[in-house]
Amino acid sequence: MKVAVNLPIGSYDITIERGLLKKAGAIINLDRRVLIVTDSGVPEEYSKEIAAQCREAFIETVPMGEESKSLSVFEKLCGFMLEHGFTRSDCVVAVGGGVVGDLAGFAAASYMRGIDFYNIPTTVLSQVDSSVGGKTAVNLGKIKNIVGAFYQPKAVLIDPDTLKTLSERHFSNGLAEAVKMSLTFDEELFEIFEKSDSHENIEEIITRSVKTKAAVVEQDEKESGLRKVLNFGHTMGHAIESAEELGVLYHGECVALGMIPMCSPEARERLTAVLKKLNLPTEYRGSAEKLISAAAHDKKFSGKKVTVITVPEIGSFKTEEWSTEELFEHIKEFFA
Amino acid sequence: MKVAVNLPIGSYDITIERGLLKKAGAIINLDRRVLIVTDSGVPEEYSKEIAAQCREAFIETVPMGEESKSLSVFEKLCGFMLEHGFTRSDCVVAVGGGVVGDLAGFAAASYMRGIDFYNIPTTVLSQVDSSVGGKTAVNLGKIKNIVGAFYQPKAVLIDPDTLKTLSERHFSNGLAEAVKMSLTFDEELFEIFEKSDSHENIEEIITRSVKTKAAVVEQDEKESGLRKVLNFGHTMGHAIESAEELGVLYHGECVALGMIPMCSPEARERLTAVLKKLNLPTEYRGSAEKLISAAAHDKKFSGKKVTVITVPEIGSFKTEEWSTEELFEHIKEFFA
Repeated sequence: MKVAVNLPIGSYDITIERGLLKKAGAIINLDRRVLIVTDSGVPEEYSKEIAAQCREAFIETVPMGEESKSLSVFEKLCGFMLEHGFTRSDCVVAVGGGVVGDLAGFAAASYMRGIDFYNIPTTVLSQVDSSVGGKTAVNLGKIKNIVGAFYQPKAVLIDPDTLKTLSERHFSNGLAEAVKMSLTFDEELFEIFEKSDSHENIEEIITRSVKTKAAVVEQDEKESGLRKVLNFGHTMGHAIESAEELGVLYHGECVALGMIPMCSPEARERLTAVLKKLNLPTEYRGSAEKLISAAAHDKKFSGKKVTVITVPEIGSFKTEEWSTEELFEHIKEFFA
Repeated sequence: MKVAVNLPIGSYDITIERGLLKKAGAIINLDRRVLIVTDSGVPEEYSKEIAAQCREAFIETVPMGEESKSLSVFEKLCGFMLEHGFTRSDCVVAVGGGVVGDLAGFAAASYMRGIDFYNIPTTVLSQVDSSVGGKTAVNLGKIKNIVGAFYQPKAVLIDPDTLKTLSERHFSNGLAEAVKMSLTFDEELFEIFEKSDSHENIEEIITRSVKTKAAVVEQDEKESGLRKVLNFGHTMGHAIESAEELGVLYHGECVALGMIPMCSPEARERLTAVLKKLNLPTEYRGSAEKLISAAAHDKKFSGKKVTVITVPEIGSFKTEEWSTEELFEHIKEFFA
């Protein structure tokens, strides 16, 4: 399957195919210097598979986790390219999850003011979500994605076979973003979650999610309007992420919890059933007070109105402006 | 005077006017958080003049010199904005020379993946040259501009009155880039240098240089073709810069020397007369051997062909591919 992403600054394809890693050289010009960025949590055979197809490959393995999304690791990657004589004709390939894609993408965007970037996401979360959209970034301290660039890859290669090495919990964690896409845009995809096995249908799940996200990004590359709908479930999801001890709940799990209060009762019932089927959480175990106190530290909630996405019927959404108080009152009903 | 720069990603104006600093608020929306970046070599009344027109201004003064174009100063600027709650609706204003513009521009390009950037260049060099083109960057170690972005300002404000505080040598240093523009594109501008006083005609010199550079950038935003002509005089100019002790010769002075061998004999005679009039160097005091040895360390000259811009007649140029040997032989005739 190929999904084309057409943007004013150029177009590129997202190719979704089992066994694609082995054929990367047919899509990417690897006859040059190639910096392959991966992390210590990604099976090393994936980056080696790509390296074997390059004329001159350099594999940089950063430590797994958010801490690698820092300006110091970014500087290390740029310094490495400089040291090895990378020119504007050479390229960067990310092999891994969202951390690797964000970090390597920002290095590619900035080195010599931009060299070719290719993304090979190897987790469900990065395949259905972060691989599309051209958002690259690193963190500053604890604040995520504060320094970065909108920089589109030349191509995205998705090989669903790489998901075989993923734990069941990580698999479901990534699916939460696909559930989000289905809730707001694609009832047929939602029915796949309801009626069939996600493992068996993972190619279709990825393809439909990527198509939806590509369509949104095409209409709003720089995140000024429509793209806000991609934040469905994320407003409270982020608050849950900050209220929790780091890593107790994964990102997708927090998004799952964050979506529940934003659905109509009918949609919520079907959503809860799907989340349970996917072993995603449906009940927040912390207190609403703790959650609201965490949210209050977020600048999004400082006094003014908050843009909230709600789902009246599955496959559709509404954008509303709520006051912080309204949002917090609403939340209290759901999280005891 | 207004010069429009029309690029696929959007358009902006360069306004050239005496006393413009005082009227910045009429062009720039300063009714928001504004980070004013300047350096210790720039008279502080310039940044204060802008700050006085802002609703909420923060002045960051970095140390004068190339050392401030580093990822650590870049990180400091981004961290400062984060700490003071800058959002995507706030902006960065550079007040100073090329170092400040490059650094502040990259911070604006990267903070939250891009916020509004305004450039107020206050030196001849930055007014005629680096304020146009959207090149932003910092250095990595001794290698200049290796990490950055193509990021266009929302507006450029040029106030020729700011040049009154510039030393005569810095004034002439900047004019070297304007002489370069005239040699390759604009014989009438060259005649201004020949026939009249540069101080008296500085507004016209800036305007004509900016128009020329804007036209080149419009045709080649990302530096893939035509924009190479802007490197006229820079190939050997950079070699002279590296062969010299740091700071013995200024950038424009090296470019002046670098242009001489690349002109036809007729053009060269007129160029030499203009350079002398402007107190720019016409004779390189180092040895050709030292120069060539410095150039040999530059990757541009590693074995292959070099793209060389020559001026057959004033106001025109040719792009040629020379071998490194040819270039070095040619240089020897000029630099004893």
